[in-house]
Amino acid sequence: MKNEYVDIDTLKFLLYHVHDIDNLLEKERFKEYDKTSIDIFIDAIKTFSDTALFPFIKEMDEKPSYFKDGQIIIHPQFKNIIEKAGEMGLVGSIYDFEDGGLQLPTTIFHAAYYIMEAANNHVPGYFGLTAGSANLILSFGSEYLKNTYVPKMLDLTWGGTMCLTEPQAGSSLSDVTTMATPTNEDYYLIKGQKIFISSGDHQFCNNFVHLVLARIKDAPSGIKGVSLFVVPKKRPSNENELVNNNAIIAGEFEKMGQKGYCTTHIVFGDNNDCRGWLVGEPNKGLSYMFQMMNEARIATGRMGAAIASAAYYSSLKYANERPQGRKLNSSGQKNSEEEQTLIINHPDIKRLLFNQKAIVEGSLSLIFEASNYFDKEMTSSSKEEKEKYNLLLELLTPIAKTYPAEQGIKSTSDAIQILGGYGFCFDFMPQQYYRDIRIIALYEGTTGIQSLDLLGRKITMKNGKAVDLLAKEIMKTVQEANLHNELKAYSNILLENLGLTKKVIQTLLPHASKGDFERYLADATIFMEFFGTIVIGWQWLKIANHAKKILSEDNKEQANLFYESKIHTMKFFYTYEMVKTKGLAKTLMNNENLTTKVANAIFN
Amino acid sequence: MKNEYVDIDTLKFLLYHVHDIDNLLEKERFKEYDKTSIDIFIDAIKTFSDTALFPFIKEMDEKPSYFKDGQIIIHPQFKNIIEKAGEMGLVGSIYDFEDGGLQLPTTIFHAAYYIMEAANNHVPGYFGLTAGSANLILSFGSEYLKNTYVPKMLDLTWGGTMCLTEPQAGSSLSDVTTMATPTNEDYYLIKGQKIFISSGDHQFCNNFVHLVLARIKDAPSGIKGVSLFVVPKKRPSNENELVNNNAIIAGEFEKMGQKGYCTTHIVFGDNNDCRGWLVGEPNKGLSYMFQMMNEARIATGRMGAAIASAAYYSSLKYANERPQGRKLNSSGQKNSEEEQTLIINHPDIKRLLFNQKAIVEGSLSLIFEASNYFDKEMTSSSKEEKEKYNLLLELLTPIAKTYPAEQGIKSTSDAIQILGGYGFCFDFMPQQYYRDIRIIALYEGTTGIQSLDLLGRKITMKNGKAVDLLAKEIMKTVQEANLHNELKAYSNILLENLGLTKKVIQTLLPHASKGDFERYLADATIFMEFFGTIVIGWQWLKIANHAKKILSEDNKEQANLFYESKIHTMKFFYTYEMVKTKGLAKTLMNNENLTTKVANAIFN
Repeated sequence: MKNEYVDIDTLKFLLYHVHDIDNLLEKERFKEYDKTSIDIFIDAIKTFSDTALFPFIKEMDEKPSYFKDGQIIIHPQFKNIIEKAGEMGLVGSIYDFEDGGLQLPTTIFHAAYYIMEAANNHVPGYFGLTAGSANLILSFGSEYLKNTYVPKMLDLTWGGTMCLTEPQAGSSLSDVTTMATPTNEDYYLIKGQKIFISSGDHQFCNNFVHLVLARIKDAPSGIKGVSLFVVPKKRPSNENELVNNNAIIAGEFEKMGQKGYCTTHIVFGDNNDCRGWLVGEPNKGLSYMFQMMNEARIATGRMGAAIASAAYYSSLKYANERPQGRKLNSSGQKNSEEEQTLIINHPDIKRLLFNQKAIVEGSLSLIFEASNYFDKEMTSSSKEEKEKYNLLLELLTPIAKTYPAEQGIKSTSDAIQILGGYGFCFDFMPQQYYRDIRIIALYEGTTGIQSLDLLGRKITMKNGKAVDLLAKEIMKTVQEANLHNELKAYSNILLENLGLTKKVIQTLLPHASKGDFERYLADATIFMEFFGTIVIGWQWLKIANHAKKILSEDNKEQANLFYESKIHTMKFFYTYEMVKTKGLAKTLMNNENLTTKVANAIFN
Repeated sequence: MKNEYVDIDTLKFLLYHVHDIDNLLEKERFKEYDKTSIDIFIDAIKTFSDTALFPFIKEMDEKPSYFKDGQIIIHPQFKNIIEKAGEMGLVGSIYDFEDGGLQLPTTIFHAAYYIMEAANNHVPGYFGLTAGSANLILSFGSEYLKNTYVPKMLDLTWGGTMCLTEPQAGSSLSDVTTMATPTNEDYYLIKGQKIFISSGDHQFCNNFVHLVLARIKDAPSGIKGVSLFVVPKKRPSNENELVNNNAIIAGEFEKMGQKGYCTTHIVFGDNNDCRGWLVGEPNKGLSYMFQMMNEARIATGRMGAAIASAAYYSSLKYANERPQGRKLNSSGQKNSEEEQTLIINHPDIKRLLFNQKAIVEGSLSLIFEASNYFDKEMTSSSKEEKEKYNLLLELLTPIAKTYPAEQGIKSTSDAIQILGGYGFCFDFMPQQYYRDIRIIALYEGTTGIQSLDLLGRKITMKNGKAVDLLAKEIMKTVQEANLHNELKAYSNILLENLGLTKKVIQTLLPHASKGDFERYLADATIFMEFFGTIVIGWQWLKIANHAKKILSEDNKEQANLFYESKIHTMKFFYTYEMVKTKGLAKTLMNNENLTTKVANAIFN
């Protein structure tokens, strides 16, 4: 099943060349692996995706998960999927061997999930969230919690979730009101409601382990009073039986897309018998949860890139098969006697394809860049290096979440456009991908929230050190590109944009230093679009550098056209996307205060 | 029902002030009308929309039209709607009195349909297409066709459709293969298939009148051999009975949105007994159909603007009611002891609202501008004036179709974003509007087709005369704005963009004069985005001029804030949107040939 939804050659080129996974595999932690074993793992994931995931994506949309008799019912194929995912170790792929994991680099974990999500984005969340929540228990939980929950989660006998959002609070986690009342035992009594709980329940795991943010009685207000609890659906009794824990599934949210992936409403402690076990120390819940949220943000961006990949390949297939219209002759006329040409021969269709390719592959490269920093931070022995990679990861995380989300909307929309009227019809896939991907800009903090994080926290942290570090990384890419005449014009553009970024930040910062944070952050989302475009431009130049390098070698692994396509797509990105940054910079540096100093009544 | 889906005050301000409908009402053709009677008509439409349309939009999505036993079944509420629409004369609103019409200006027709489509975009197509097809018969049909069909269509006893698209041809109308074989009678025998036929059939009209493009036996190939036929579902017999005409409904396309509005597949002449009556002369079908298509293109843009309006008001309502988060203090912190603030108080939410407002109202203004040209062309007595307004209308038509379609996607997406996770759920409306509006960029010629029309035909026609005429209109707006200090900075930007437009066109034209039409048109869609933004910028400056004028008068009709909001939104558009044109111009003037001189295999 070649290029039905993902291009494995591109994925491997990004992994092995652009992001130099070999270097990572030399680390002590990953010494069990080499390129061959990674290849085998990735190929197994592809086979699993081809056979168990991709064939069911349309059906999962047509037969959504639903709520019945207090339980969520998901598509029957999940029985098979969850069994196999448990066997393949997909939950614990990055955990230590001693915790029952595969101890793979995170970058490889993301590569595997990217393939699965491109095949069927309704699926991998069921084990991805279990992976994240078990990891939280491993990182911060007591021995009791680890021993009781993690082994069952590792093989997907039990599923895991994260329960943050409440109806009255939305993104505002400081307003969490779920209560945890201490008892004389080792547990608390939990009472409250959580909504939008992905993979919150289904018929194919016999228990669920919810990681719940709640407020211990009399805790300080705001985020400083939020703690983290393990709250199982059924609690293990002393006799090792499972007892109902009064964590009630109250319903399922009906959604526009990603309908196979359930989104539940859970009521805890309705009859005051819901027990929760504290993870780590009291009132530190949000900082623990942020470990999982940061992982989840990159995972969400990855899912966006994966959906866009699937849409791209479905539209590419159509463009290669559908005849329509004719090429123009030198008088600007069409000869209706000629046979119709394939639509891929029309420049506007090629433009729509290149735009998708640029977004899909650029986004994936950014996901690998970020996860590489994660792996390097984890495996580095130098404190300074650890800090460097941590800062770079922190800076890139909101962008890696948002760029694929926002640009993925445009990319899947382009896929629809290639199919014309058919693109809007249920007989073809682009309309589903277009619906599915729309959630990505909302999951794990909306684009607005990510943008506040980027401009409000990440740009300013440690006096801008993260930006300086990133600038150095970008400069390395610029210098490498300058070695190739063909790339110089583009490296100049990137350099110019780096300067423009500094100018924009310098223009905005005085608002913050004057204490006008509202004004400083008013256009944070525009800053995200601006900076995100430049970061992807950097990724594309990096990709082009590596393509150029391989093209100049004698022992090329693949045909020239593959590498030339990377350079060509880089040029496309610079010609059609990088041109937008100056306009965005102008908006960012405006003095108008149009959204800050204006009465709400202006809309009424 | 104030501002649940449309703002009538804005609509009337645009009609009465910005587009000076009074001036039009002084024409002989419209002498039966004055502002008071127009007000009464618009208010009646609003009441009809409030009571019969808006309450059913969600249900029509949940219970789509479907195919059963050879017929399309649509929502039961249509019985009531179609009866009332027939009574109100909504089919013939712009026809001559002598043809049974209301002889209203087209601009008022568009205003009325805009309100109805904002209330429920699944509905007005059922009578809008009947209006368009009956108008074609009135314009080009024989007395027999007029007398036989039009009266029944006027009161919606019978419905009308346009049948262009065929499965193998899509947008390429020169490849129509439906055959018309002459007989010894006054009719032809029709044989062929048509797809994507909007409002092609349903249970509430007892006959349908299809206007079908077909090729008379032995006609020349290409568009020069395409004729237009009236092909009824049931043909009136000599005894005035309706006889089955072998025009078979073969199915319904299941769509991502606009599910209440049926999209059918019709098979003509399966058993060689489908009769069609020629409209006008043979082989001129496409030129006749273009009358209807040009109207339909403006109507489609109008529908896009209307859907975006509905989404805007649904998100505005939410923003005004939903508390979440807090304002930042001067240390950039939130005080979690405070009550949560309404989300409309967050600048990023205001930005999303202004963006929607700018797109919705700017688009509506452009629809009125175009339809005003139509009315002026029709009522002018000078040949020169007629040509002027015709050229201006021709130039603006593809933009009036495309800007609301493409920007409407972004606008409705912004509405989802304001609701956060709820925006993705079926309990709230934005997700439906987001799905509904996606068809607008595909109907009546995709964005790619409209863009080829704009750059390939409209910009170059009569040696660029249309662009010159538009430049003069824009200059009038610039000069008027220069009278107000507050607007000068923006009129300078518009002037600069007019210069940039000329520069872009001058840079592109040499490709065409060298015979490289493929290159000339390669980025036509980017040109559409570029020029469309400038045209909407012109509309906003025009709106601001009129707001400013009223604000300076003593006897203002409404509170200042209403007019100030128009000026503020103009500033928003210039600060956040007009800044994009330079980047787009740079793309347009690139020398890279990235989508023309490249092998298709680059994607594989």
